[in-house]
Amino acid sequence: MLLPTASAPPRRRGRVLQQALRDAVRSGRLATGTRLPASRELAADLGVSRGLITEAYEQLTAEGYLSSVRGSGTWVGGAVRTATATATATATATATEPVVAVPPDSPALDFRPGVPDLSLFPRAAWSAAHRRALARLPHRGLGYPDPRGLPELRSALAALLSRRRGVVADPERVVVCSGVAQALTLLGFVLSAEGQRAVAVEDPGSPEHTGLFASTGLRTVPVPLDAEGPRLDALAASGAQTALLTPAHQFPSGIACSPARRSALLAWARGVDGLLIEDDYDGDFRYDRAPVGALQGLDPDRVAYAGSVSKSLAPGLRLGWLVVPEALADAVTVRKRTLDLGHPVLDQWALADFVARGDYDRHLRRCQRAYRARRDALTSALAALCPDAEVTGIAAGLHAIVTLPEAYGPRERLLERARRAGVAVRPLSHYLSAARNGIHEADGRVRLVLGYAHLPPGDIERAVSLLVPPSAGR
Amino acid sequence: MLLPTASAPPRRRGRVLQQALRDAVRSGRLATGTRLPASRELAADLGVSRGLITEAYEQLTAEGYLSSVRGSGTWVGGAVRTATATATATATATATEPVVAVPPDSPALDFRPGVPDLSLFPRAAWSAAHRRALARLPHRGLGYPDPRGLPELRSALAALLSRRRGVVADPERVVVCSGVAQALTLLGFVLSAEGQRAVAVEDPGSPEHTGLFASTGLRTVPVPLDAEGPRLDALAASGAQTALLTPAHQFPSGIACSPARRSALLAWARGVDGLLIEDDYDGDFRYDRAPVGALQGLDPDRVAYAGSVSKSLAPGLRLGWLVVPEALADAVTVRKRTLDLGHPVLDQWALADFVARGDYDRHLRRCQRAYRARRDALTSALAALCPDAEVTGIAAGLHAIVTLPEAYGPRERLLERARRAGVAVRPLSHYLSAARNGIHEADGRVRLVLGYAHLPPGDIERAVSLLVPPSAGR
Repeated sequence: MLLPTASAPPRRRGRVLQQALRDAVRSGRLATGTRLPASRELAADLGVSRGLITEAYEQLTAEGYLSSVRGSGTWVGGAVRTATATATATATATATEPVVAVPPDSPALDFRPGVPDLSLFPRAAWSAAHRRALARLPHRGLGYPDPRGLPELRSALAALLSRRRGVVADPERVVVCSGVAQALTLLGFVLSAEGQRAVAVEDPGSPEHTGLFASTGLRTVPVPLDAEGPRLDALAASGAQTALLTPAHQFPSGIACSPARRSALLAWARGVDGLLIEDDYDGDFRYDRAPVGALQGLDPDRVAYAGSVSKSLAPGLRLGWLVVPEALADAVTVRKRTLDLGHPVLDQWALADFVARGDYDRHLRRCQRAYRARRDALTSALAALCPDAEVTGIAAGLHAIVTLPEAYGPRERLLERARRAGVAVRPLSHYLSAARNGIHEADGRVRLVLGYAHLPPGDIERAVSLLVPPSAGR
Repeated sequence: MLLPTASAPPRRRGRVLQQALRDAVRSGRLATGTRLPASRELAADLGVSRGLITEAYEQLTAEGYLSSVRGSGTWVGGAVRTATATATATATATATEPVVAVPPDSPALDFRPGVPDLSLFPRAAWSAAHRRALARLPHRGLGYPDPRGLPELRSALAALLSRRRGVVADPERVVVCSGVAQALTLLGFVLSAEGQRAVAVEDPGSPEHTGLFASTGLRTVPVPLDAEGPRLDALAASGAQTALLTPAHQFPSGIACSPARRSALLAWARGVDGLLIEDDYDGDFRYDRAPVGALQGLDPDRVAYAGSVSKSLAPGLRLGWLVVPEALADAVTVRKRTLDLGHPVLDQWALADFVARGDYDRHLRRCQRAYRARRDALTSALAALCPDAEVTGIAAGLHAIVTLPEAYGPRERLLERARRAGVAVRPLSHYLSAARNGIHEADGRVRLVLGYAHLPPGDIERAVSLLVPPSAGR
């Protein structure tokens, strides 16, 4: 608010103040519904007497610009028709809904993959960790952070990833970031600056990768899979020096990369003097067998390892990590610095504390139990209602691939029936490159990617009965 | 940790487990000092019997790989000499010190500009805001956020900036980001993608800008100042379509851009179909006069407005905002999404709550009182000890420009004397482009940029007496 200098006569100041308030309301700068500060506070802010403010509030309330309730304060709004009030109100209403796991217009039962059950988030333990962080960190710890992340968190993550995932993680090579997407953006910028132009990605794979890498100047080259993992002939033909992989549990097919293919992929990387990027997106969840260790542990100089708490705690925390080969560590740190000067410190302290106290391991065990039960609910329901369906990729992760018998197809008919029944499903073809879209259904069978972790077992059973009713498979 | 499948005989699994632990310790993958999980927890994680784990721990403790204290747990370390333990320990020790406002090897009295007093951070109120956020937000609020920021925070910021700074802030055009550095990076990427190649920056100005914009493909063109603000002839000659400005309180000179120059700058932007970026880095702190409103309020379609809590609360929160012209809003949002998928949600909820409850205004008033007292301590000490010094740029902000009489120079002698006395100061020339370095001392007088906000008044008086002792000015 622009006021004349303190030396102007009070009456003039009062007039100017009132006019400024009127203009602000009319133009929509002060939106309808905005609560105005208490007169005492605004007076202190503007360096004027409180009387000047109360007079202005009363005048504008009388004029219909403001409304007030005794003892409750003063709001913008009343008779005035503001320039942008309607537009703003409408736009805000549509934006009130953040982009969440299940958008409000989506079906009641959504088999969206890659979404954890947010009701399992350990609110009390996380709140306690945050409170301890605020109680303990020294004042200077509130200053600009090390762009790589707090040393305490990098050490805690190095020990955690070493123990849980077999990652060779020197804290000096851990970079705390906001998640796997930022990890890929950071690497993309660094590789692009080195002169690389392309990154090989798995096909099927996440549709997000092309956009992420494009923002860093790299194009993506899809590489098809066979039963053991990404095909080496296609990788060799890609012309890329970098490949993004999900070796522990391929997204979305669920294939675990075979030991032989792991060796061959590393040999390829060494041969082209290149890099493998390991996205360990759901490495924390294994149900039937001992965990498959990270590929990174086999050759930490050829593999950059990325992970986050998005599947284990909550995507909204925006907390992840990147373990980089020594040769890239400095360049990645410089990029992290220019992108955001480092991650918020209180969240970092809280996660370091949460991991160090064993709360993270405890939470993972709790989720693992819940998700295993949901996976079992999905497989049991399918076995009962559609015994000919094949269910694969279920040893780990938060989703499964379900191949339905030919009678349930073709794809469009199945999807339309599911939509009408209020069940959202995504065909595997959704994750295929344009060139290969449909190839997975050459045998006439529809393959679906079903995320189950966020759905209670009862919902899973109901959704399956709606998806494959007895009438549909004939 | 890689273990044979659950079907392997227990004895073999025990042997493999022990060997894996030995290798992990020897190679440094499990660093000395790492605390191992409780046997019960590790057993659950690996899906083996607890006996297998306790046996392995006992065996390796006996062998000197591990050490344990009854009732306290088991740690890596003992007799074993690990591959990288020494290197890691050293590296961690040097990295234990995050990059903070005052690095540990710096002088006791550092007039570093742009640093708030972190001891004023409202820990209790912030902790309460965070706790309320965790108690109240719905489960789905923990999912991926709107990349622009939570609607609740964007509305709170729009009202705050409108009221305090005269910003025309439709919540739809507010983008929550990690601070002004990220705001500049976001805009840099967008303008670079539009084909722009250069950004005009103020000279003197922040030395960080060149690197930030270079990371987005833009070079910076320094534009000298006169008493009213950036010089228009130099701006016109720059060839740039975008200019980064600090109109309310130029950094570091402290000049407030004159009303005539504000109009002329906007006319320039319209003439070249360009953009002004307003960095309102310390707009919250005014001491003697009513606040100068934001330039953005004069033409929201030609000015992008950036600010943060780095000076008002703490840089470690990494929270800021960008208010963008409508024409750029979508492109900035897309960039924000590829950089980090949006800001952490709990911090956003906490800030929205903190602002909405009036805690932010209260905190600013408290800081303003403290910083005004420190500014007064600086000007009084200088008036007493060096009455011929000129002190400028003191109506606002966290720093002042002090021009010392010729007798205190030349620059190198002054800086050396200050260094020996344990006082860190930065000459204004530090903030000048290479081409103009030294020009501000053509009259033989040294100009210093003295940040005072983080120093208690007693320290300020002591530092001034060390900087301009009676013996020096003769």
